[in-house]
Amino acid sequence: MQSKEIDKLIKIIAKLPALGTRSARRIVLHLLKKKETTFPALISALQEVADNIKECPICGNYDTQEVCSICSDASRDAELVCVVQDVADLWAMERVGLYKGQYHVLGGILSALDGITPDDLNIDGLFKRLQKGVIKEVILALPATIDGQITAHYLLSRLKEMPVKVTTLAQGIPMGAELDYMDDGTIQLALSARKEI
Amino acid sequence: MQSKEIDKLIKIIAKLPALGTRSARRIVLHLLKKKETTFPALISALQEVADNIKECPICGNYDTQEVCSICSDASRDAELVCVVQDVADLWAMERVGLYKGQYHVLGGILSALDGITPDDLNIDGLFKRLQKGVIKEVILALPATIDGQITAHYLLSRLKEMPVKVTTLAQGIPMGAELDYMDDGTIQLALSARKEI
Repeated sequence: MQSKEIDKLIKIIAKLPALGTRSARRIVLHLLKKKETTFPALISALQEVADNIKECPICGNYDTQEVCSICSDASRDAELVCVVQDVADLWAMERVGLYKGQYHVLGGILSALDGITPDDLNIDGLFKRLQKGVIKEVILALPATIDGQITAHYLLSRLKEMPVKVTTLAQGIPMGAELDYMDDGTIQLALSARKEI
Repeated sequence: MQSKEIDKLIKIIAKLPALGTRSARRIVLHLLKKKETTFPALISALQEVADNIKECPICGNYDTQEVCSICSDASRDAELVCVVQDVADLWAMERVGLYKGQYHVLGGILSALDGITPDDLNIDGLFKRLQKGVIKEVILALPATIDGQITAHYLLSRLKEMPVKVTTLAQGIPMGAELDYMDDGTIQLALSARKEI
């Protein structure tokens, strides 16, 4: 007995990642409880993002300015470019605050299952940037999944022709982890890549 | 390195029930991926609900019309009123489609912990409806939690003065459940309320 307006809103919210009909219903009822304040705040925040946020034509980051604040920051190292799957991973790198180079957002990774081919990713953009000759090192910060590693290998094979160093994030036991809870693959990898201390 | 517009939207979404910063970030990035279609659809659906949905002054249900479609439906049994905690529970009852009486939404349940007293609930509204003398039976469909049962007992004590029958939803083993997975309290309750077949 929900009105069609409520129904429609629940359906749209239920399609967002990590949500379903039940959580969408809870969200809509939560919003309706303090209708006068919740709706205007959410709507105006959405509108502001929709109106102001653009995709950076160089790296693919989201920002209010045409060329994003990272690409246009002269204090960052233009010789280093870190290739990430999506903007979420770029944000994760930036939260650490250690990396001071540039980024390149692929917009996904290769996936036979989802039918994602090199043409679907922003790979041409990366090579166009490399052809300018400024970039000296490409850091592949792709997911440590099978698809992520396939994508890294594909990029590595194509990057071989270019005069750049290609590196990848170190793999091993994550900080704070107990060996007992690690999967066999990670332990094998950490063992074979062991370092003298 | 997120722009302040994106930051603000993430903060608002993270406060919605069942969401946190991480899921809010994923939702905002999902929306940004197909910015041209996702934002207008979500914003207009929110705006329509904000503009059109009212709280029914009789039962507390949400609807586009002042007196909700359930309260104004003459084919429903006006002698029966089902008391529920909130509109989510009303929707749950309506999805079953079996109940053909009226509702009364309390807007919460008594809670010592959250400091919710009878004055915070729409109990006066219920008694005003009862005083008209049409209602013959009040069904207490409150949560089977301690607070829910305290609320039911409180209502029962006050309803004793009124010439109405008071009933409550049956408790026991839910359909499809295995005894092994049931808590002791439910098994005890189901055993003491056992029925001859």
